[in-house]
Amino acid sequence: MNVLAIGAHFDDVELGCGGTLAKHKANGDRVFIYIATQSGYRAPDQSVVRDNDVARREGEQAVRILGADELICGPFKTFEVEFVEALNTEILGIVERTKTDIVYTHWIGDIHHDHQVVAKASLHSCRHVPRLLMYRSNWYHSPVDFRPSFFVDITDYWDIKEQAIRAHQSEIKRTHERWIAFFRNEAEAAGQRMGVKLAEVFEPVKWLA
Amino acid sequence: MNVLAIGAHFDDVELGCGGTLAKHKANGDRVFIYIATQSGYRAPDQSVVRDNDVARREGEQAVRILGADELICGPFKTFEVEFVEALNTEILGIVERTKTDIVYTHWIGDIHHDHQVVAKASLHSCRHVPRLLMYRSNWYHSPVDFRPSFFVDITDYWDIKEQAIRAHQSEIKRTHERWIAFFRNEAEAAGQRMGVKLAEVFEPVKWLA
Amino acid sequence: MNVLAIGAHFDDVELGCGGTLAKHKANGDRVFIYIATQSGYRAPDQSVVRDNDVARREGEQAVRILGADELICGPFKTFEVEFVEALNTEILGIVERTKTDIVYTHWIGDIHHDHQVVAKASLHSCRHVPRLLMYRSNWYHSPVDFRPSFFVDITDYWDIKEQAIRAHQSEIKRTHERWIAFFRNEAEAAGQRMGVKLAEVFEPVKWLA
Amino acid sequence: MNVLAIGAHFDDVELGCGGTLAKHKANGDRVFIYIATQSGYRAPDQSVVRDNDVARREGEQAVRILGADELICGPFKTFEVEFVEALNTEILGIVERTKTDIVYTHWIGDIHHDHQVVAKASLHSCRHVPRLLMYRSNWYHSPVDFRPSFFVDITDYWDIKEQAIRAHQSEIKRTHERWIAFFRNEAEAAGQRMGVKLAEVFEPVKWLA
Amino acid sequence: MNVLAIGAHFDDVELGCGGTLAKHKANGDRVFIYIATQSGYRAPDQSVVRDNDVARREGEQAVRILGADELICGPFKTFEVEFVEALNTEILGIVERTKTDIVYTHWIGDIHHDHQVVAKASLHSCRHVPRLLMYRSNWYHSPVDFRPSFFVDITDYWDIKEQAIRAHQSEIKRTHERWIAFFRNEAEAAGQRMGVKLAEVFEPVKWLA
Amino acid sequence: MNVLAIGAHFDDVELGCGGTLAKHKANGDRVFIYIATQSGYRAPDQSVVRDNDVARREGEQAVRILGADELICGPFKTFEVEFVEALNTEILGIVERTKTDIVYTHWIGDIHHDHQVVAKASLHSCRHVPRLLMYRSNWYHSPVDFRPSFFVDITDYWDIKEQAIRAHQSEIKRTHERWIAFFRNEAEAAGQRMGVKLAEVFEPVKWLA
Repeated sequence: MNVLAIGAHFDDVELGCGGTLAKHKANGDRVFIYIATQSGYRAPDQSVVRDNDVARREGEQAVRILGADELICGPFKTFEVEFVEALNTEILGIVERTKTDIVYTHWIGDIHHDHQVVAKASLHSCRHVPRLLMYRSNWYHSPVDFRPSFFVDITDYWDIKEQAIRAHQSEIKRTHERWIAFFRNEAEAAGQRMGVKLAEVFEPVKWLA
Repeated sequence: MNVLAIGAHFDDVELGCGGTLAKHKANGDRVFIYIATQSGYRAPDQSVVRDNDVARREGEQAVRILGADELICGPFKTFEVEFVEALNTEILGIVERTKTDIVYTHWIGDIHHDHQVVAKASLHSCRHVPRLLMYRSNWYHSPVDFRPSFFVDITDYWDIKEQAIRAHQSEIKRTHERWIAFFRNEAEAAGQRMGVKLAEVFEPVKWLA
Repeated sequence: MNVLAIGAHFDDVELGCGGTLAKHKANGDRVFIYIATQSGYRAPDQSVVRDNDVARREGEQAVRILGADELICGPFKTFEVEFVEALNTEILGIVERTKTDIVYTHWIGDIHHDHQVVAKASLHSCRHVPRLLMYRSNWYHSPVDFRPSFFVDITDYWDIKEQAIRAHQSEIKRTHERWIAFFRNEAEAAGQRMGVKLAEVFEPVKWLA
Repeated sequence: MNVLAIGAHFDDVELGCGGTLAKHKANGDRVFIYIATQSGYRAPDQSVVRDNDVARREGEQAVRILGADELICGPFKTFEVEFVEALNTEILGIVERTKTDIVYTHWIGDIHHDHQVVAKASLHSCRHVPRLLMYRSNWYHSPVDFRPSFFVDITDYWDIKEQAIRAHQSEIKRTHERWIAFFRNEAEAAGQRMGVKLAEVFEPVKWLA
Repeated sequence: MNVLAIGAHFDDVELGCGGTLAKHKANGDRVFIYIATQSGYRAPDQSVVRDNDVARREGEQAVRILGADELICGPFKTFEVEFVEALNTEILGIVERTKTDIVYTHWIGDIHHDHQVVAKASLHSCRHVPRLLMYRSNWYHSPVDFRPSFFVDITDYWDIKEQAIRAHQSEIKRTHERWIAFFRNEAEAAGQRMGVKLAEVFEPVKWLA
Repeated sequence: MNVLAIGAHFDDVELGCGGTLAKHKANGDRVFIYIATQSGYRAPDQSVVRDNDVARREGEQAVRILGADELICGPFKTFEVEFVEALNTEILGIVERTKTDIVYTHWIGDIHHDHQVVAKASLHSCRHVPRLLMYRSNWYHSPVDFRPSFFVDITDYWDIKEQAIRAHQSEIKRTHERWIAFFRNEAEAAGQRMGVKLAEVFEPVKWLA
């Protein structure tokens, strides 16, 4: 299988489906990752919260840890990516070039501007791919319901997932220590519901078994 | 894998997931079928519309065509089966005995009394099974939304499915000629959306990949 | 057109679609009303809150005011009617006898036990009727969403509706003065949204234009 | 009645509600069609997939076949139309000029960028029109539920619908032969559910009967 | 405030809203608990899984730990409680006697038979209470969406909650050790989302602030 | 508590939550109001429907009537505000500066372009605020369900709300006389459902009690 994981920022894919991607690699699948934005941004007072180059380097390291075959970086600016043809064309190009069989992308109900945009662009651009699952890479409240019915046992892949998240060292202090604990919690809860130790969860838009 | 397909009446399972069950057999899985009611019933004027014995014989024939390992018949009367412990106990017993891995059952939004009851009983009794998919065996309108995101390619299994439906000879004249055309239509439409020729569709409640 | 309005208790139909029924009559349609229960009941201390005979008489008077062609009374006890074959058979019998084209019935998300039961029984028994609209005859909160997209202009029929509700004199003091004000409010609000003076609202399950 | 059908591209309206529009004409209604984009576009390698002028000519031919009173063409570029005032103003202008009574437009859950935009613009701009129905002109999967409760019998109008679709000769080879088969399937399935031969389906946002 | 917490079995209320109830007591509110069934039941082979008397004693102990003012025990048998007048009357009687201001009850989408029944009975019987929140006391998958938007900070009340759950000693080995870990996880996750340490979550049906 | 009410245009906040804001002030809370656009706009023929300066002056007067602590005016043009970083930054800045505890904002399903944009921007920018309620300031039909479960008793605050709405004198003739009647109706209906005289209603996205 050819897998395409799409995220708005470096670390979205690690948080949302990192374990599943590592599992795909272990199963002999090919994994491609597309990150739409440069991921860096500034605070309102213009101080740099996250630096584009650092984000890129850490993202590349994380991708190496996951074992992905290729990382494709989009040119869009954080917070400025929109659901327009430029973005759709990028995604469609990768789908056609790598003959994508499965897509993992942001959940459409995510309240984060960039995640929402990338989710819509994915649905539009991957309309001919018979498998598309939506993940969450944050847990901010949304008025939309998230319907996680698709589970993947990542008991043997949590460590790789955690390492990949920790590759984002510049984010660890600011956010990710809490996020790791949170996603670890979620993976345990999901696993317990499914009778395995740790699981990642997705809302399936379409799945050809 | 051990598969359990649950239906309220003989022919529900054939209509809703017959192709998928045949595919499971071809893949070496074991398939068990539980039909909750005797399936026979009378019209308001007491004339027999469908005879219990005939329904049973035709149901057994259909199950043979699908190649299922075992057919378990529930004792409940058509239109009189309810979401009570007697029904739940039957289903749970089969789940535990056959070590069910995957359940196919009625969709919870079905407006038909018996289908609704069996759907609820399945959700309750199969709460420890990590895979449950809901099928439709009729297309009557419901105020509930049916969310078919899980597709199975049954291009090579349509013929078996159709044969199994046609085993219900006593129903063919009354209903099933139309139903076969309808479900054939649906399978083509579903297939086209997925890039295959014919597909069955399900709404997943939970799925451990 | 042959119209069938179904309610659990006398006054449900008047409250939920009384104006629309009067309009149907004015348009030359035939209107049949089926009330499933006797509508009377006692308080926990056994005192009579509503008397069966009084409810029946007032119900018949209300039906006369609406101008309906026939009132069919079900034998079920208030709070004891269930979604079983006895009820389904009654409704199906009327549908077949009067060749129903349009059904008005309770909304499936209603939290009131009897309303919920009658809604389900209607969906099941009227599965071959190509038009079914759900009304609300109370406004108690429900976790289910009511989706009122179908509006009927009853500006010229409010008076008949109100008269029909007021035919339930024994209920006026206890409940209906408030209910009349409430439903008048709703009719004005609905009308304003639609550009007419007063409107009744329904959630359509199926509608063949 | 004055009818306004809105589509993003030439052929959306034919696919989504062509039969219903022909029926409106047969009933003496006036039908206006607004197509927001030029409909032509290029592949990623810049080769022309669909030419603007050809799309326009074929669109005009299709509209003639449907018998519509007027076709209004928007200036927006395919894939570049957005939910902004320029688009809203166009639609509102037509609504006010032609005194629209009924609107047919794209479904809001459509994953296609242009369809989504046009759906939102229609809802916003037609907020004072008391009837708005949403159609589907593709069947790509969406995480949003499509709720088709409003049916129109187009048994006598399928041929006109099909002719109008086939007016898009340049698209027939590429897409439409499959699409015609698909929509024919859907029309049969919808019709069977409603007791007619062929039907078009819509999700009603609001309908003043 | 007068609070009424309703559960199908002993331990439902502890699991679902135990911390919130303890908090209510700390705030000077009065707390009443109604448990509908005897909670004991047998396995299919008739061996006793949970004994009625033991369940009762442990339930009473748990209620003492929470500090509730009164425990009212319903007479219904586990798995045999139904949405009928006998149950509705019990609940309504308590609401009127204790002048309930807030109700906590089972979530309506729960797949467990008894939980579902008690949820429906609560909605029906508490229709005049202006505040009703639904909790989850298990996390089995359901096709219905749970919409947890209402959070209560129970950081200072987790210990009491855990003690109350552990009062069910006979259940600890069988189920609750896992359930405690699960609900602890959930409380941490919920808390993190809200900026507190531990939180219980509810879906509000109605809330008068 | 520090309250932030966000609206797209002057009068949105008055219509949607004016009573609740006045109540907050009476309770000693601090209330901040952010209006994103200048609120003025022209008709298609370029005639001025609403003048920016007049809208501003009337908006300031309304805010004085409500007793709010501060009004912050966004620079965006009516109909041209979009879900982009410029808007998000404004909102986030206010949230951080005023240490917002509760947010009232537009409902996400609103079909009005500006309302929809501001709703999304609010969800994104207020993702760290533990309380967010969505109000409606119009009642145009939407395919999205509005789920009003959160009620506030504004019986004592209706007069202030009405005065604040009437401060928009230039709008009274054009729209607001009807809107006042409509919202008065809604407040009575909502109140009756809750057992108070007049209430405002919200859909809660998240609420930390």
